[in-house]
Amino acid sequence: MTKIKVLNENDVNSLIDMELAIRAVENAYREKNSTNSHVWPLIFYEYEHNIFDLDIRSGNLDGYNSFGLKVISYNENNLKKNLPKVNATGLIFNSITGQPTALVNVASITAFRTGAAAAIGAKYLARKDSKNVLIVGCGNVALHSIAAILIAMPQIENVIVCNPKNNTGLVEKVKKLKSDVQSILDLSNKTIKATIISSENIEESVKESDIIITATPSEKSMIKVDWVKEGTHFSCMGGGMPNKQEIDSETFKKAIIFADDTKQCIENGEMQTAFRNSIISSIDGEIGEVILNQKKGRTSDKDITIFDSTGIFLQDLALAIELIEKAKLENIGIDIEI
Amino acid sequence: MTKIKVLNENDVNSLIDMELAIRAVENAYREKNSTNSHVWPLIFYEYEHNIFDLDIRSGNLDGYNSFGLKVISYNENNLKKNLPKVNATGLIFNSITGQPTALVNVASITAFRTGAAAAIGAKYLARKDSKNVLIVGCGNVALHSIAAILIAMPQIENVIVCNPKNNTGLVEKVKKLKSDVQSILDLSNKTIKATIISSENIEESVKESDIIITATPSEKSMIKVDWVKEGTHFSCMGGGMPNKQEIDSETFKKAIIFADDTKQCIENGEMQTAFRNSIISSIDGEIGEVILNQKKGRTSDKDITIFDSTGIFLQDLALAIELIEKAKLENIGIDIEI
Repeated sequence: MTKIKVLNENDVNSLIDMELAIRAVENAYREKNSTNSHVWPLIFYEYEHNIFDLDIRSGNLDGYNSFGLKVISYNENNLKKNLPKVNATGLIFNSITGQPTALVNVASITAFRTGAAAAIGAKYLARKDSKNVLIVGCGNVALHSIAAILIAMPQIENVIVCNPKNNTGLVEKVKKLKSDVQSILDLSNKTIKATIISSENIEESVKESDIIITATPSEKSMIKVDWVKEGTHFSCMGGGMPNKQEIDSETFKKAIIFADDTKQCIENGEMQTAFRNSIISSIDGEIGEVILNQKKGRTSDKDITIFDSTGIFLQDLALAIELIEKAKLENIGIDIEI
Repeated sequence: MTKIKVLNENDVNSLIDMELAIRAVENAYREKNSTNSHVWPLIFYEYEHNIFDLDIRSGNLDGYNSFGLKVISYNENNLKKNLPKVNATGLIFNSITGQPTALVNVASITAFRTGAAAAIGAKYLARKDSKNVLIVGCGNVALHSIAAILIAMPQIENVIVCNPKNNTGLVEKVKKLKSDVQSILDLSNKTIKATIISSENIEESVKESDIIITATPSEKSMIKVDWVKEGTHFSCMGGGMPNKQEIDSETFKKAIIFADDTKQCIENGEMQTAFRNSIISSIDGEIGEVILNQKKGRTSDKDITIFDSTGIFLQDLALAIELIEKAKLENIGIDIEI
């Protein structure tokens, strides 16, 4: 039998913080483009369109001697039953032996690594003098993206939150969002310095922004290409899935484009529509290549840059392994035999 | 947090038996062809060709309100380290909520369900008066296939074991095999009634057999089409993988052919070479359709029939769920929170 570590929801929440998430996700991107590490094909299954579906994401990180997978499901029907909408479970293995090493609740890991990705895209591709950030969406991805960008780019002064698909109660939602962002920053002993405000005028907000993070499950563009000023950076986060679209496909024609994983982005990412409609036929590279200095990324303050982040399991894997190491030191979680 | 059941290697071994495996696998095949149950795409990753590779197999069984996956790795390097060559870990989920329900060591489940599949193929497609079985291979798949066919088809009188790729110590290996078959039959309070002998003459053995079960990791045909007599049934078991081949592709031209999963068999099964070389362009159906009486299967005592079994996760899932139910009744395994 094999001894494995189990980290449940509470264990993970007691171990995680956004600075660690950003370091781990940068590492994962670096590994992807410099070692024999791979994203394996994504499995997507839909029980009920836009109500209940699930992904299986998997891959290996050679620098961590690990491979693994996570199963993440989204089920709107669970809300009525007072059950969590998102369930996310990860299994990790030793890539030297093939033996399992850990079972980890990856719900918070998914949220933190997604926010970290949005911030890393901006840190490496946005203008260094960026001050104004627009977040489209006010859910969990928005929350973690704001927290991450405030940590990764302390020069940010203003965060504007738009939610064009549903403005109901936006002011209250953003108030809650701000308090939740502070809770995440608390884990790193940091305080919000930027203003965080809501806006119902997305056109105006796009025009004022240096960085735009899209964080909705939209299947229709919410941002017209004509609104986008020179020098803008986009981190497109909203879940990788068939038909996902948050920004005007025409934007891609004007932009320098990086993916987290090229194949997955072409299939399920923000860029899928631009490819399908032959607006573009290639991209500039992967974010890992920019982090590794293998590719330049932004070439001037006038470039529009796009980071298409569909989310890769390597992000979860790197962060989970960091947490497992921390758990061993702090004696958190249980060991079981399998 | 969510409570899940953990069944480790010892727990599973104390719960499993071949009669249960046969019932569960038949159910899985039935479900696949009569409910909204699906085999999801197989992920295959190779660390070292023929030395260390792994599969992720997944799918859903609607009749069991479940979905899940298993990760199974084969690592020859582990033998030197005194670690198990095969590691197999399964995760099971409730398909109404998406929540995880169980973590199960599926090494024995994989072995039992594979043997069960070989026997089910023969039970539904071989001649009812079949007496002589040839097993090609003398590893774990051979062991479980013999045990299963002796249970599923008590009319079997003779089992011949050939291992043309490696005849070294065959007599001793078959002696061990016989004693291991009895250990599996013990779980069902049954005794071996058939003779189990070895043969180094595969041509002669093929000519004498009513049922041939291939159970090797071969990538090259070991059985010439000219040796095969009218009325023979094949259950081709050796692991689904790129380039897998155990029997002459020309056999397919003469045969009635059933798959466990058509797509997976065309891609990774025994029939892949016959399809690639345009020897056949279609098959007769899936084994589930025969079990459900939706398709006829064998039409006369002269037909050659082939069951191509690449192995589908639905087999593991059905058997794992049966064992979990039994474990709850017998208070076996532990419950943990994730």
